[in-house]
Order: sequence, then structure tokens, then C-alpha cells
Amino acid sequence: MTITATEYQARVARAQAGMTAAGLGALLLTTEADVRYFTGFLTRFWESPTRPWYLVVPAQGNPIAVIPSIGAALMGKTWISDIRTWVSPDLVDDGVSLLIATLRDIGGDIGTPFGLESHARMPLAALAQVQAAVTLRSDQGIVAGLRAVKSPAEISKITASCAIAGRAFDRVPEIARKGVPLSHVFRDFQRLCLEEGADWVPYLAGGVGRLGYDDVISPATDEPLAQGDVLMLDTGLIRDGYFCDYDRNYVVGAADPLAADGYACLLDACAAGRAAATVGATAADVFHAMHAVIAQGPGVAGNDPGRLGHGLGMQLTEGLSLIPTDQTPLAAGMVITLEPGLTLPGGGYLVHEDNFVIDPQGARQISPPAWPELRRI
Amino acid sequence: MTITATEYQARVARAQAGMTAAGLGALLLTTEADVRYFTGFLTRFWESPTRPWYLVVPAQGNPIAVIPSIGAALMGKTWISDIRTWVSPDLVDDGVSLLIATLRDIGGDIGTPFGLESHARMPLAALAQVQAAVTLRSDQGIVAGLRAVKSPAEISKITASCAIAGRAFDRVPEIARKGVPLSHVFRDFQRLCLEEGADWVPYLAGGVGRLGYDDVISPATDEPLAQGDVLMLDTGLIRDGYFCDYDRNYVVGAADPLAADGYACLLDACAAGRAAATVGATAADVFHAMHAVIAQGPGVAGNDPGRLGHGLGMQLTEGLSLIPTDQTPLAAGMVITLEPGLTLPGGGYLVHEDNFVIDPQGARQISPPAWPELRRI
Repeated sequence: MTITATEYQARVARAQAGMTAAGLGALLLTTEADVRYFTGFLTRFWESPTRPWYLVVPAQGNPIAVIPSIGAALMGKTWISDIRTWVSPDLVDDGVSLLIATLRDIGGDIGTPFGLESHARMPLAALAQVQAAVTLRSDQGIVAGLRAVKSPAEISKITASCAIAGRAFDRVPEIARKGVPLSHVFRDFQRLCLEEGADWVPYLAGGVGRLGYDDVISPATDEPLAQGDVLMLDTGLIRDGYFCDYDRNYVVGAADPLAADGYACLLDACAAGRAAATVGATAADVFHAMHAVIAQGPGVAGNDPGRLGHGLGMQLTEGLSLIPTDQTPLAAGMVITLEPGLTLPGGGYLVHEDNFVIDPQGARQISPPAWPELRRI
Repeated sequence: MTITATEYQARVARAQAGMTAAGLGALLLTTEADVRYFTGFLTRFWESPTRPWYLVVPAQGNPIAVIPSIGAALMGKTWISDIRTWVSPDLVDDGVSLLIATLRDIGGDIGTPFGLESHARMPLAALAQVQAAVTLRSDQGIVAGLRAVKSPAEISKITASCAIAGRAFDRVPEIARKGVPLSHVFRDFQRLCLEEGADWVPYLAGGVGRLGYDDVISPATDEPLAQGDVLMLDTGLIRDGYFCDYDRNYVVGAADPLAADGYACLLDACAAGRAAATVGATAADVFHAMHAVIAQGPGVAGNDPGRLGHGLGMQLTEGLSLIPTDQTPLAAGMVITLEPGLTLPGGGYLVHEDNFVIDPQGARQISPPAWPELRRI
């Protein structure tokens, strides 16, 4: 399903309604996801930190791209027609005067994302110049709020990414067995993701241990898989600009009964979270539903990871957090992960994760069904 | 070659000398590369935009990590011992008060990168709180200056990444031929990079066309390769936290003589750039050496990409730019790319790229030798 120019225009119209309510003359956007959300500008070139990219969304009229000339051809293929470029990098004025002129021309206060998980992807020196020239203030969550609710086209893309990861997870027994170093498993799993249709694989994490893993963000070591090890792989792969983000757990040979119990508890917690994740329920409600199940299980509901799930879309994690303090109400069209975890006594952390769309009638899983027991390899 | 604790300590000592000269009490670092440069903290978890990560490098004493608790275990494996954590995400105070207390305790002005290609990876709301509590000003390029000159261990890592990409480039005839869609070539090339030893493949660009490519930052289309097409693949893969960044050009069957001439001109330009890239020469000198050759060739030295090469290391692009205005003198230990390009009459853009270390006796190529003619597939 394609994101049409009509859909981009509707996004702009919704942002403009928000701007009018907030008394803003325009939005200034600087990050990959925010710029792409209104334009469709998709490139891996953001990996290079050298050049800033600016999108200005005025309260009336069409967005204006203020970008390095290297991006003009690609931006010209999107629905955006007002494209203002400079030759970047420019050591003296790297697009700042062009940006300021554009903002001044529109007039009014300029809103930009200020809140949690946002940042301004531009040098602080340039930011200070903009702040000296115009009034720059919080967009009051306009952009994050719009992005949190996905369109059918977006949901179809996230679902496609989930399916690709599912096929790769199914093939893990091809690449993982006793004696294989975790670093090889990581490399080969990314290869499987590509073979199954990923455009690229921005994120892979994992862990290994008989009773769970030490931590879930470390790079893979060359330690070989041992009999009885639980192996977890957690991927955020991209297809057509949208992420999935879920994991699968395996066991080398037979699982320790405690690990098996822990896994069963996490599936139960995920089911409870899914049942709770209805339109109008809050992120906190979903947290508590899962936490209650974990608290009854064989492990400790440690909170080092800080949350039991989050929103998902153009970024690996975005929007709400499943924590006791997040009172964001779930809305139809949101896409979230449920990511219950626990720490086993005498062991490490164990985590299970699946992806869901919030439908009017409840949460619908878009990652393939998890296996009912740790999958033997 | 491992980056030892001694090397990290030496980096801190050099930064501290810079802080003393600049009258700074500490540095505040927020991005993956800057934090890793002083700590060795390597994780793909930065892909998640949710949590900020802070490193404070005081003018005296050891660095202090102010980070989400999910990173404590991994940071604990580095040489850093002062690790202060909070449970993130926290909707009310996501580490900001802990950071401010840490900075105030040290005292003095706080420096942070302000210049080109830097940004503060933290919410603007949090940045405003920090700015209200302490004096935050430019680090005067201390961090970028240190990072620009690579240690032997860093050079060995970049060289290893170059070798991996070289083996993958050699295997492209396995995956690319007439009729294969470019999107398949992109997917399969990343697979080859992983098979040859990449930890992951953050960047891949490319282009196709009989007389060069339309642009060099677009995602791959499903257009099949046609007889006479020039195919360019440009990868930035990661091994052990360090990038390579270079490309290779192929031709499906026989090349148009103009494309062959263009390629030969780019090799000549690269050789001229290499000869010019001696210690003490400026980035601008290297630009002019290459530009003079391109100007004599069969194409137009268009400047949409904005430069003819750049620094390279923990980021795909970092540090100096090969442009007429960059007067940065080359120093021994710098790693740069030479990336001459030209636009063929009636055609598109053609670009060649290789990677070099600046040795005391001159530039030494660390990407494998380029093939003398467009490689036939």
C-alpha cells in the first residue's frame, strides 16, 4: 500500500489545525522521521551527520524543503514542490540564512518538537542563530501526536516488516546450534532478514544464558552457544521505511524448567496486555495488566529496561511508553509493542515481545504468533 | 587491535588540556560517537530515540556516565567507573536533574559540540533546563579535533572494515547481472557484506545508468539492470564500531566509451588527490588537485554533492570536507575519503571513492586497489 500525496496533504492539514490552535506560524522539522512523515523523503543518507535537513510546514500552504543540493533530485520525486537548496557543507553559512529567511517570510512563532525522545538535528550554533531570529518554541506535541496514530498504509508497511522478521525467525535453526558463536548468529540472522525481504536491518540485539541473559543491549560476543542456553534475538528491520520490533526466544536442547516457566509467564503477560490494550485504555493500564501477571510468575519484575512496551513506526521506538505514569489513551490506529520481561532467580533477564495494532475492537497482533514454548534448536 | 583503557585515558587527558585552555569546567557529550570515543560504550541501542545518554568529562578526574539504567550493565564493562543512572523513560524528569546536579557539582562553564555536523541528542526542553542551570557554550571544537586524528587501533579497525567491503565488492558479479532489479542487488550486497564479516551495514547507496546515475542517495528501485548500465554501489559498513566508506563501479556488458572515459578520469583525479594529500596540505589543496583533473575530463565538475571527500571513522562522514573553503591542514593519522565525481554530457553523475590514511610520508590507500576499468558483470 502506497502513501499517496493525498495522505501527505491530509497530514499537513491536521498539523495546520494544530498550529492554528497553538498560535504557531509554522513548524520546523529536522529529523529523518519527522521530515519523511510530511514528505515521503526516504534515504539512508541521514547516516551521514554532516548535512542538516530542514522542513518548514507553514500554518497555511504547502511545506517548504530547505535542504542541501545533494537531496534536490530525490526530494523532487516526492509531492513537495517548494524546494530551496544550498550547496552543503558550507563552513560559513550551512543553510542557516536560507532557513531563517524562509521562517521570517512566513512569520509568527515557530514550533518544533521539544519533548521526550525528540531532538533538533542541527548544530547548536545554527540553532542559536535561528532562536535569535525567530521565536522558537515547543510544537506542543503536534507532530508526535499525529505520528502516533498510523494510517492503513502505514499499518500495512509495519505488518509487512513483521512478516519478514517472522520468516527470518523461523529460519534461526538453520544458523544457530550448540557451539556457534553468538556473533555468527547475529551476522547470519541479519542475512536471513535481508533474504526474506528487509531493505536493511538497523537494529539487532540479543542475549544468551541458561536462565536468561545478562543484558539486552550489548553487541554479540564470540562466546559459543552451549547446551541449555536460551537464545533471544530482537530485531528492528526496515521495509519501505517502516520498522517491526519484536523478539523470539530459543533454547539449545532442553530448557531449564525455570526458564520454561519464565517464558510461559511472559506469554501470559503478553496475552493480558493484549486484552487490556483497548481503545481508551491508557498506556499505564496496559503496563499494570502485564505487570500483575509477571508479579505472580517465577521471576522478579525488575525495571532496568524502564518499560514493558512502546509505540512503533518510522522509528524503532516512538510515542507512548508502557509505564505506570504514562496516561496516554490508546487510539485506534496506534501500533505498539508489548514487551514483558522478568529476572529469574539466580539468573538473568528474560523478555518476550510482539507487535500489535489497536483496532476499534481491540488489539490485533501483527507479528506472527509466538511459539507456545521456547523453540528448540 | 583493541582500544585499551590507557588509550581512552589519553583521550580524556588531551580533552582536559583543551578544556583548561578554553576555560571549561567540563564537556557534555550526547551522541553515540562522542560518548563512545571517551568510553568504548558500543551498542546498537542508540537506534531507539527514546532515551538520552549523557557523558560528562570534567576538566580534572574521570568521566561520569549519566545514563538510563538499561545501559548500566554494558557501561560497567567499559573502563568507566562513575556511572549514575535513572530509570528511563521518565515523563517528568528524564535524567535532567541528575545531569544538572552532576554538572553543578563539577562547576565552571560546560562545553559541548556546537559546530558543523554536530547536534545535541537530547530534547530541546531538557536542553533549555540545562542552559538555565549552567553556562553551556561551544567546546571550541575540542572533541571534533581529537576525533579527527586516529590512533593505530582506530586505523586498524577502519582498515578491517575496508577489507570486508573489498571482499563483498569482489563478489558483486555473483549477485548482479542483466535483468536483476537494483533493489535485489542492494539486498544481496548487504548479505555479502555480512558474510564477509560486517557487524552491520548502516549505509548503502548506489545508482544505475548508461552514462552515470540520476542521483546517489535514493533507495533502490525495482528497475532491472540493462545492457551497458553502469552500476555503482557505495557502502558504509561497520566492523567493531568503525566505518569504511567507499564505492565501486561496474558495467553490465560493454561500457559506453564516454562512461569508460569518465571512470578513467575519476581514477586520475583520485591519484592526484592522493598525491596532494600530504601532512600539512589543506583539505582545500586536495580538493583543487582533484578538481583540476576533473575539469580536464569528459564531464562537468558539477557540485551538487558539495564536496570531493571527507573524514571517516566512527561515523560514515566526520571532520574535514574536501571543498575550496576548508583550510584544515592534514595531520598524520587522519583518515579521509577521496570521492571525485563528474557529470557526463547527456548523462548523469559518476563517482569513485577510496579511503586513505594520512601517513607522515603521504596518503596510504586502505581500501583495496580499485580496478583500472569499469568492472564487467
